[in-house]
Amino acid sequence: MPLRERNDTIAAVATPVGEGGIAVIRVSGGNAVALCDSLFAGKKPLLDVPSHTVHHGRFLTGGGETIDEVLVSVFRAPHSYTGEESVEISCHGGMFITNKILYAVLSKGARTADPGEFTLRAFLNGKMDLTQAEAVAALIHAKTEKSHAASLAQLSGGVTRRVEHFRTNLIDLCSLLELELDFSQEGVELTKRDDVIEKLDNTITDIKKFTTSYLYGRVLRDGVKVVLTGKPNAGKSSLLNILLQQNRAIVSEIPGTTRDVIEENLSINGLLVRLVDTAGIRQSEDIIEEESIRRTHEELESASVIAVMIDSSEMMTKNDSELYHSLLRVSRKNKSIVIFLLNKSDLTNREFSFDLPLTENESQMFISCLTGDGIPEFKQRLFKISLPNYDSGSSSILLQNERHKVALEKAVEKLDLARQTLANGLSSDFVAVDLRAALDYLGEIIGITTPDDILQNIFSKFCIGK
Amino acid sequence: MPLRERNDTIAAVATPVGEGGIAVIRVSGGNAVALCDSLFAGKKPLLDVPSHTVHHGRFLTGGGETIDEVLVSVFRAPHSYTGEESVEISCHGGMFITNKILYAVLSKGARTADPGEFTLRAFLNGKMDLTQAEAVAALIHAKTEKSHAASLAQLSGGVTRRVEHFRTNLIDLCSLLELELDFSQEGVELTKRDDVIEKLDNTITDIKKFTTSYLYGRVLRDGVKVVLTGKPNAGKSSLLNILLQQNRAIVSEIPGTTRDVIEENLSINGLLVRLVDTAGIRQSEDIIEEESIRRTHEELESASVIAVMIDSSEMMTKNDSELYHSLLRVSRKNKSIVIFLLNKSDLTNREFSFDLPLTENESQMFISCLTGDGIPEFKQRLFKISLPNYDSGSSSILLQNERHKVALEKAVEKLDLARQTLANGLSSDFVAVDLRAALDYLGEIIGITTPDDILQNIFSKFCIGK
Repeated sequence: MPLRERNDTIAAVATPVGEGGIAVIRVSGGNAVALCDSLFAGKKPLLDVPSHTVHHGRFLTGGGETIDEVLVSVFRAPHSYTGEESVEISCHGGMFITNKILYAVLSKGARTADPGEFTLRAFLNGKMDLTQAEAVAALIHAKTEKSHAASLAQLSGGVTRRVEHFRTNLIDLCSLLELELDFSQEGVELTKRDDVIEKLDNTITDIKKFTTSYLYGRVLRDGVKVVLTGKPNAGKSSLLNILLQQNRAIVSEIPGTTRDVIEENLSINGLLVRLVDTAGIRQSEDIIEEESIRRTHEELESASVIAVMIDSSEMMTKNDSELYHSLLRVSRKNKSIVIFLLNKSDLTNREFSFDLPLTENESQMFISCLTGDGIPEFKQRLFKISLPNYDSGSSSILLQNERHKVALEKAVEKLDLARQTLANGLSSDFVAVDLRAALDYLGEIIGITTPDDILQNIFSKFCIGK
Repeated sequence: MPLRERNDTIAAVATPVGEGGIAVIRVSGGNAVALCDSLFAGKKPLLDVPSHTVHHGRFLTGGGETIDEVLVSVFRAPHSYTGEESVEISCHGGMFITNKILYAVLSKGARTADPGEFTLRAFLNGKMDLTQAEAVAALIHAKTEKSHAASLAQLSGGVTRRVEHFRTNLIDLCSLLELELDFSQEGVELTKRDDVIEKLDNTITDIKKFTTSYLYGRVLRDGVKVVLTGKPNAGKSSLLNILLQQNRAIVSEIPGTTRDVIEENLSINGLLVRLVDTAGIRQSEDIIEEESIRRTHEELESASVIAVMIDSSEMMTKNDSELYHSLLRVSRKNKSIVIFLLNKSDLTNREFSFDLPLTENESQMFISCLTGDGIPEFKQRLFKISLPNYDSGSSSILLQNERHKVALEKAVEKLDLARQTLANGLSSDFVAVDLRAALDYLGEIIGITTPDDILQNIFSKFCIGK
């Protein structure tokens, strides 16, 4: 059945799998309230209670046996998450009870919800647009302050408003073209044509700028990996400690984190910095060859930034110099950014000679893990390296979703074509075709022109019960 | 502060840890509604809404930034789970958001709830007695139909009613002793003394009988392990299939289940049967020696019941006979119960000769995995072996909790002493001391005389957020 015609009753466990104090089973669809009512023994029939009220009672099997004491919340259409009749059953946590309640609901004719189907229905019923629906999944998976903020902005319609703004501009241009201009005929005022080109250029620039924010969106979502290395006793642990004390990130575990390397998560102005402390490097060319430091090498290869701790109170020996040169060969090959942290600045008079020739991706700075000197500057540099030209005062509407980015890029391609056609003075009919194609791509982002298969693909990536 | 004087506001995430559609943060205590109100931006102030209503809005940090769109349910004292002012915040699942909302609540002066502290408060506020509170934890951990039913019966006060009944009888006895009898003086009517002794005996018998139900309670809670073995091609897989088709148990994963042995869970009249299919045994004495079947041997050792499949359409060879003898040596050493399943009864005229001398723990029965003959009898035998003398029609109030069992046993000890004193005709003062001690033990079960440290111990085993 086409997605937009479905209104059967669906059910799913909405809370994470496992044992906890509470689990919630969600039911939505035309028959949701009546169905749950037939399985609920409380003071009042659920069909008679007002929307948005909570009721204590016993939840029963189809055979009338008590499963659990529950709290049931009733949401009447259209004032629910999905816009449909909805019920949320809050029972004692534990998989046995939770499954048993779900089975009871299914036994009365509900069907197991597909992943994301509640949110799909919310979208289809006009409770939210497509970018807002996608924001729900992004919110759930948010692991950092900034990605949380970006998802929330998207949920409140931020991305849609930007896209709608682009669409409005393009629709205005279309009207202009249709009503006033026909470049294929003679005698057309050049100023008007230039006007249109200028308006189109502005829109292209705006869309491109918005597309660029996807780069930030990704860094803000996934964080940036900084590998800390250096000779033993250069002060790596002290740096880790001082950073953690000030900035330990609230973050849930990131899948794929290896356990045999110490990885700590810092939050620097909301940016997730995944700081990996390596075993340290040796004073030889061994860095690549030795199996025992294979892991360090692997970490260095996948680092966005390599921070090299150096004890600046010691003279740099020829061996040291060779060591850092070998490190730079690795980092340059991988195009990593390198910061040499000249530690123990409190002990030196800063006449320490650091004479490695550095490229534009490489820099040095004095710090003291003892006094804290230079630490704020180091953090600021990490932030600037990860998010160059990021203006925290500007709009918090960042693209996080690759689908959106791709659609914007396709729209820009079509607009570039339209601009070329305009500049060449061809018929406005040709221009209009490309403008309409661009409008369609923009419409796909917010769900106006999105085909069912793309919708299904989007929502299949959601959690069950959302 | 003594437990009974605490009324500060506590908060915890009540849903399991992980990513899901919904997470719920629970807040309870004098200031719960006001506190959440200060972090909630909705249509109405939460302090103004009726109890048991649900409200959509934005939940904020202490600094006023939006964390998420949430549904907030308000429960006003005393009409809440804890009996206190309570709020449940239902937010988008995902640990980042969930933790952030919890931190916001804590930043406004709430404290993280100890494990089980919501239920502890429900107990202290008279919303439930101690066995009901313990039933909450048991319900969450229930893995089988019967243990679920027993927990539910306990939640609805079943255990308490039994214990209260014992207590009432004993209190009556105490009154009798104090008002009418003094056995240390002469001239006491012997019939009255015999009356008291008879009444005491009855109570002791009742308590002992109830204590015995703990054995059933444990089997019903944890299930019974049946190891299926036999020669290759005797029909083990067919038996497994036929049982699974009819009786696959709804059960959540049981910790400790090994993954390299096939274990399937069946439900036979609500009894969890954990059926382990072993690799099969060989026709030699190898059973104990060979490393490759070490695992089978381990399983046999930990089995409650060993089911040995035999192809009854084949002649039993001398080798077979030796094999089964060696198996019996293992089972007798471990005091397991053994059932020889003579399969393919459809193919034989039942003149198959099975001539192993069997003890009372060992039996044989004909089955056919093809026609299903004998399968119901096999299941019935498994049930009877696991729960001898179990009367499904009798009270479903089963002891599941070891603390209850121990307290009942201690009470019986004291009652036995009292009975001896009575029979010896000693002063009723002595009798009364023991009766009161027994009453205290019974009171501990339902929470009347339970000291704070025992309470804390009980609730510390709960989930966080319950």
